Amino acid sequence: MIVDCAEYDQGARRPGRASLSDLGQRERGDGRFVWLGLFEPTAEEFSEVMDALGLHPLASEDAVEAHQRPKLEIYDGTLFLVLKTARYDDPTETVEFGELLIFVGADFIVVVRHGAASALAEVRAELEADPERLALGPAAVLHGILDRVVDDYAPVMAGIDDDIGEVEAAVFSDTPTNPVERIYKLKREVLGVHRALGPLVDPLHRLSSQPLPTVPPAVRSYFRDVEDHLVRVTEQNETNRDLLTSVLEANLTRVSVRQNEDMRKISAWVAMAAVPTLVAGVYGMNFDHMPELDWRFGYPAVLAAMAVICLTLFRYFRRSGWI
Amino acid sequence: MIVDCAEYDQGARRPGRASLSDLGQRERGDGRFVWLGLFEPTAEEFSEVMDALGLHPLASEDAVEAHQRPKLEIYDGTLFLVLKTARYDDPTETVEFGELLIFVGADFIVVVRHGAASALAEVRAELEADPERLALGPAAVLHGILDRVVDDYAPVMAGIDDDIGEVEAAVFSDTPTNPVERIYKLKREVLGVHRALGPLVDPLHRLSSQPLPTVPPAVRSYFRDVEDHLVRVTEQNETNRDLLTSVLEANLTRVSVRQNEDMRKISAWVAMAAVPTLVAGVYGMNFDHMPELDWRFGYPAVLAAMAVICLTLFRYFRRSGWI
Amino acid sequence: MIVDCAEYDQGARRPGRASLSDLGQRERGDGRFVWLGLFEPTAEEFSEVMDALGLHPLASEDAVEAHQRPKLEIYDGTLFLVLKTARYDDPTETVEFGELLIFVGADFIVVVRHGAASALAEVRAELEADPERLALGPAAVLHGILDRVVDDYAPVMAGIDDDIGEVEAAVFSDTPTNPVERIYKLKREVLGVHRALGPLVDPLHRLSSQPLPTVPPAVRSYFRDVEDHLVRVTEQNETNRDLLTSVLEANLTRVSVRQNEDMRKISAWVAMAAVPTLVAGVYGMNFDHMPELDWRFGYPAVLAAMAVICLTLFRYFRRSGWI
Amino acid sequence: MIVDCAEYDQGARRPGRASLSDLGQRERGDGRFVWLGLFEPTAEEFSEVMDALGLHPLASEDAVEAHQRPKLEIYDGTLFLVLKTARYDDPTETVEFGELLIFVGADFIVVVRHGAASALAEVRAELEADPERLALGPAAVLHGILDRVVDDYAPVMAGIDDDIGEVEAAVFSDTPTNPVERIYKLKREVLGVHRALGPLVDPLHRLSSQPLPTVPPAVRSYFRDVEDHLVRVTEQNETNRDLLTSVLEANLTRVSVRQNEDMRKISAWVAMAAVPTLVAGVYGMNFDHMPELDWRFGYPAVLAAMAVICLTLFRYFRRSGWI
Amino acid sequence: MIVDCAEYDQGARRPGRASLSDLGQRERGDGRFVWLGLFEPTAEEFSEVMDALGLHPLASEDAVEAHQRPKLEIYDGTLFLVLKTARYDDPTETVEFGELLIFVGADFIVVVRHGAASALAEVRAELEADPERLALGPAAVLHGILDRVVDDYAPVMAGIDDDIGEVEAAVFSDTPTNPVERIYKLKREVLGVHRALGPLVDPLHRLSSQPLPTVPPAVRSYFRDVEDHLVRVTEQNETNRDLLTSVLEANLTRVSVRQNEDMRKISAWVAMAAVPTLVAGVYGMNFDHMPELDWRFGYPAVLAAMAVICLTLFRYFRRSGWI
Repeated sequence: MIVDCAEYDQGARRPGRASLSDLGQRERGDGRFVWLGLFEPTAEEFSEVMDALGLHPLASEDAVEAHQRPKLEIYDGTLFLVLKTARYDDPTETVEFGELLIFVGADFIVVVRHGAASALAEVRAELEADPERLALGPAAVLHGILDRVVDDYAPVMAGIDDDIGEVEAAVFSDTPTNPVERIYKLKREVLGVHRALGPLVDPLHRLSSQPLPTVPPAVRSYFRDVEDHLVRVTEQNETNRDLLTSVLEANLTRVSVRQNEDMRKISAWVAMAAVPTLVAGVYGMNFDHMPELDWRFGYPAVLAAMAVICLTLFRYFRRSGWI
Repeated sequence: MIVDCAEYDQGARRPGRASLSDLGQRERGDGRFVWLGLFEPTAEEFSEVMDALGLHPLASEDAVEAHQRPKLEIYDGTLFLVLKTARYDDPTETVEFGELLIFVGADFIVVVRHGAASALAEVRAELEADPERLALGPAAVLHGILDRVVDDYAPVMAGIDDDIGEVEAAVFSDTPTNPVERIYKLKREVLGVHRALGPLVDPLHRLSSQPLPTVPPAVRSYFRDVEDHLVRVTEQNETNRDLLTSVLEANLTRVSVRQNEDMRKISAWVAMAAVPTLVAGVYGMNFDHMPELDWRFGYPAVLAAMAVICLTLFRYFRRSGWI
Repeated sequence: MIVDCAEYDQGARRPGRASLSDLGQRERGDGRFVWLGLFEPTAEEFSEVMDALGLHPLASEDAVEAHQRPKLEIYDGTLFLVLKTARYDDPTETVEFGELLIFVGADFIVVVRHGAASALAEVRAELEADPERLALGPAAVLHGILDRVVDDYAPVMAGIDDDIGEVEAAVFSDTPTNPVERIYKLKREVLGVHRALGPLVDPLHRLSSQPLPTVPPAVRSYFRDVEDHLVRVTEQNETNRDLLTSVLEANLTRVSVRQNEDMRKISAWVAMAAVPTLVAGVYGMNFDHMPELDWRFGYPAVLAAMAVICLTLFRYFRRSGWI
Repeated sequence: MIVDCAEYDQGARRPGRASLSDLGQRERGDGRFVWLGLFEPTAEEFSEVMDALGLHPLASEDAVEAHQRPKLEIYDGTLFLVLKTARYDDPTETVEFGELLIFVGADFIVVVRHGAASALAEVRAELEADPERLALGPAAVLHGILDRVVDDYAPVMAGIDDDIGEVEAAVFSDTPTNPVERIYKLKREVLGVHRALGPLVDPLHRLSSQPLPTVPPAVRSYFRDVEDHLVRVTEQNETNRDLLTSVLEANLTRVSVRQNEDMRKISAWVAMAAVPTLVAGVYGMNFDHMPELDWRFGYPAVLAAMAVICLTLFRYFRRSGWI
Repeated sequence: MIVDCAEYDQGARRPGRASLSDLGQRERGDGRFVWLGLFEPTAEEFSEVMDALGLHPLASEDAVEAHQRPKLEIYDGTLFLVLKTARYDDPTETVEFGELLIFVGADFIVVVRHGAASALAEVRAELEADPERLALGPAAVLHGILDRVVDDYAPVMAGIDDDIGEVEAAVFSDTPTNPVERIYKLKREVLGVHRALGPLVDPLHRLSSQPLPTVPPAVRSYFRDVEDHLVRVTEQNETNRDLLTSVLEANLTRVSVRQNEDMRKISAWVAMAAVPTLVAGVYGMNFDHMPELDWRFGYPAVLAAMAVICLTLFRYFRRSGWI
């Protein structure tokens, strides 16, 4: 599905939508380029685009089916970049990943979106409002998209951070909860982010430091900024991974401690039942000569003694912190 | 055992099988090559091939006995590549590894298969149906095989992923199962994949980025694609390893928690037996003056009291979540 | 907010505060430079500075909002350095991080401070008292600040070391405490320090070993010293991380051992109640012919026997270390 | 002690033993060299050899005392190689390490053996049976020895693999064994192998890829094969290390689970004793009006009820898997 | 404090002590140098030395205060080396670290010692007894000291190895000890050694492989030997670290197993008390018709039955290994 397609001239959008057939006429002068946005195109849709722009068959194969690894390839002067976008779904505490496949040529940029992606329409609106930047050509669009995609990881990290905070609170709270499943699921998400972002560091480094086709030097230093944000997110993710490993172990210790507390509480109550039972057993013995049995107030005295024993034990256990 | 042997001219198969003696006449012109497939050849069988093609004695020694490490060697202009193929056996949850030993010369490619390998006959059929690609020579065949072998790891990863999913479900389910053996066995398989694929990354990188004999530049970019898939599989495998480590620890925590739950349940029932026993003990005492004993309805009253105590305790424990 | 702004000539401070408009006149001769200190400037404040000094728009964007990753960038001959400062808050056992953003040009140095930072006023005072060093230019100021920031990590490490010592004492003491939360929180802080200092090693290495604009060779060897201190702090932090991992595990073992001790103690007391109960049960049997029952001193004898049994058990358990 | 000493000419052994004094005359022509084997020589013995061959004093110091780290040194055109040999002692499940110190000059090779080493006499016999290879000079002998030493690690790995298999079987069997000590001891051996083989990878890589004195290019590709085997053994060892770590943790989980099973089994039996005790207590009460006591078959009825209760509980626990 | 100060000419000590003022006259010819040993000098003492030898102010700052990281610096042709010395204190099982700061110029070597250091007086005596080596100049002295310092780590490693052996014996012995604190403390020491030796590897590698001022090529190969010993110690330390991690986990498993054994032993005894108590309860019931009660030998028969039951249970538990 074609989301939007427009031709830009010196940073200004030419009115209306450009048609796919317009893509074909490649005698655009300097400062003119086409920006085409596609959403999960069919093989037929994409082969049209491919023919019009003369994309490399290998790259275009990738564009139809998603589940690529983030990477940067150069095919005959065309950059091909694969990105993972992320969105944090707070209720389920899962990260939803989407995919962007971007082709950048001298006079065109094609953006293929799969799954839940970042708000690219906003990126287009922002850039169209800043003709100076847009006049730098397709690389400026690429920067705009990368910047947005990496920025969109910030709420993901914030969401995971929040959840880690909640998990920590749960682990160290006094109410006996066991957030082990939640910790594990969070770790799974953190590993997912690791897999989505880790391989992107190298492409961004190349964009920001090496001379690449279609990327003018003026744009290169902008990529350095994106690279920086990316590395920060990556490091935060590593810290989270470490924290989750530690909190899993801390939780195990808490579970052990809580088990011990329960065991002691139970034992205390068992002791409080066992002693009067023993006393009752003693006075249940059938000896002929047991003077207490004949006493007028023997029975209430024994009951009172039992109560006193229980109370003493109760106080003792309370003082020891067992109850 | 010779599986198939054919000569190709400009991408087209020459009719019939080529014989080993045909291998010997090495005045094939441009665009002609022989593709020989062997299955677990004996030393005699292979020494014939070796003599016909003039292979290096060291490499041919490797071809007869399997259990090699994946690697890429160059002996006097001949590429020698060792690969591990994999197949996931779902019922036993094990990965079966096979081995491919491939010799690529300017005008021949010899593929030696050991154990359960990928469906190479299909690769041959596909390539024969695409003469243009086949016309690129033995390197195109090598690419076809590598592509297939690496693609065949996808169902392996999917199988392991499924099993990890099941293990997670088992760990976090409420029914008390203990999948520790299964987790361990899966880890073992993951380590096996790691050992089969890890050493292959470097050879593929060299194939896709360095000028090597017998690999024309046109084919090189195709290898980049295979390298990419390989790295993706490798990363997924690392994630699985991490997940299995975490799930093993999560499982330990679950086991501890379940132990605590059992202990509390047991204790609750013990308490419910201990209290009426104590009461019965009290009225079993032999004091002369125990007024309750003379009451008309003393006995049923005590039985009722016991029942009330038990019920109260039962409710209390149920509310506390102990039962 | 402008904290201080002064012009220095051959290491001597020119009287009074320099105004922002002074920054603009950039025909300062050799050995003259301006040192401007800002505290959490607003976007307006900073854009004034930026215009006066002609800073790169990307760098200045960073200066207003904090939460940067430590890094060293070079924009058209201006160094841009981001630093994390740290202060240990002992009562809460947390590390408070601040941020410094430093722009170093040929004839100016701008220091932007966010959050709780090191005592930069003291650095200024020290340097003003040492005109020889100050005469080396803005790079000498940069060194002074870096030196102070890295030195300020020493008390942080000392504080964490102390707390680790206390935690160790708690883990290995005989009183049953469970410092698991404290261990975890300390680990969190250690990871925070890791994140603040790790990325700084590379910039400092570049400062001390590569020719960079605005850093004269004479100053370079001074940076080597700072780099050295930084690496030492980093290594100590790694050791602490390792120690906390070990102490967490040691603590789990202690908790297990303590649980076992409690279980044995409880069991010993249960045994001491169970045996006399059994004896009492025996003499509560209603057999017609139980000779002991008719004995004159049967009852006291049995009571004495019970006491002897309990005492014997008590001694036995004490000897075994169960009580 | 001199084990054997012979001079070879064009690959053929000259009859008899060469004496140490023969070593001295160093005007051997092309294709002639001496191969001297020593076993734990005394300082005096070795200094004679040293003088005869003009070995570097530092290297010769190493030769007398063992416990070196595997390494490759070049002293004035003489290669000096230290190797660890290994032998698996199955009954004790330990790896016995020996040491080889090898000096390779243009026309001599001296092999000093310490402790239990590989069967070097066999290597000599094999090489003497293959004069063509032996004619390549001392480097061919070095290759033969290295090949044997690395091959001798295969049974070590196989032995450890077997033991790991047994340990796995023990951990996951139903009989309650606790192979923790065995796991730990195996890990110790694996670490020993790691220490013996790890440092050897680099020397072998240098032998197989760099031009070194006394190693003709024709021999170099043979070393590549040995390097390959070495890396395979090393990787297998790393896998074993990983497996042992996992199996240690799996074992802990098993121990916990078994503890829980025991606890439930015990509790079930306690419950089966507690309920009839309670019933007996009830009918031991001394109320005047307890109609059941007067019944003719009250006693057998109660005994039957007790039996029924116990049986019911027994069935229930059996169904729940507690017994 | 000056420990010793002497001038050497062609390897021979000039009689008497050299004074600090002698250091100043720097027109020593070839083969003459001064060797000055200091112990924890005050700032004043050291500034005298510094002035006499013209040392770099930064380096000399380091010399007064200890707690440096091991490193090698070159200031205007002077080598500056920081070393950690170690001594194992067996009773407390701790490693005491000292520090050596060494300045090596063309015609002087200054050794500053802090804390418990290696026996440098012995090094001096040995070197003075070997004028040939001493004639190689200050670098030979540096080698002598480094050799000694690294060799002095051998008893440290041996001490730690011994203690690990004892800890292993304690963990796997049958007497219930819990050496967790000892394991942790040993790990702490191992991390200390890691911190003291790790950063020294690179300086020694530079000394043994790069041309450095004041180190003649003849001495360089001697440093290779020291580097080798250092790497061996470092690797052993890493192995120890690994072993301690494993033994900590093995200990946890042992503690769990022992807990289970105690629990089973306790339960067995409880069962042996519970069954006779139940029997006694049965015969304590007040039914009118309980034929056993009237039997002449009912009472002794029941007592005998109780004993038989207990004995049977005892045998059963003994066979099951519970007692």
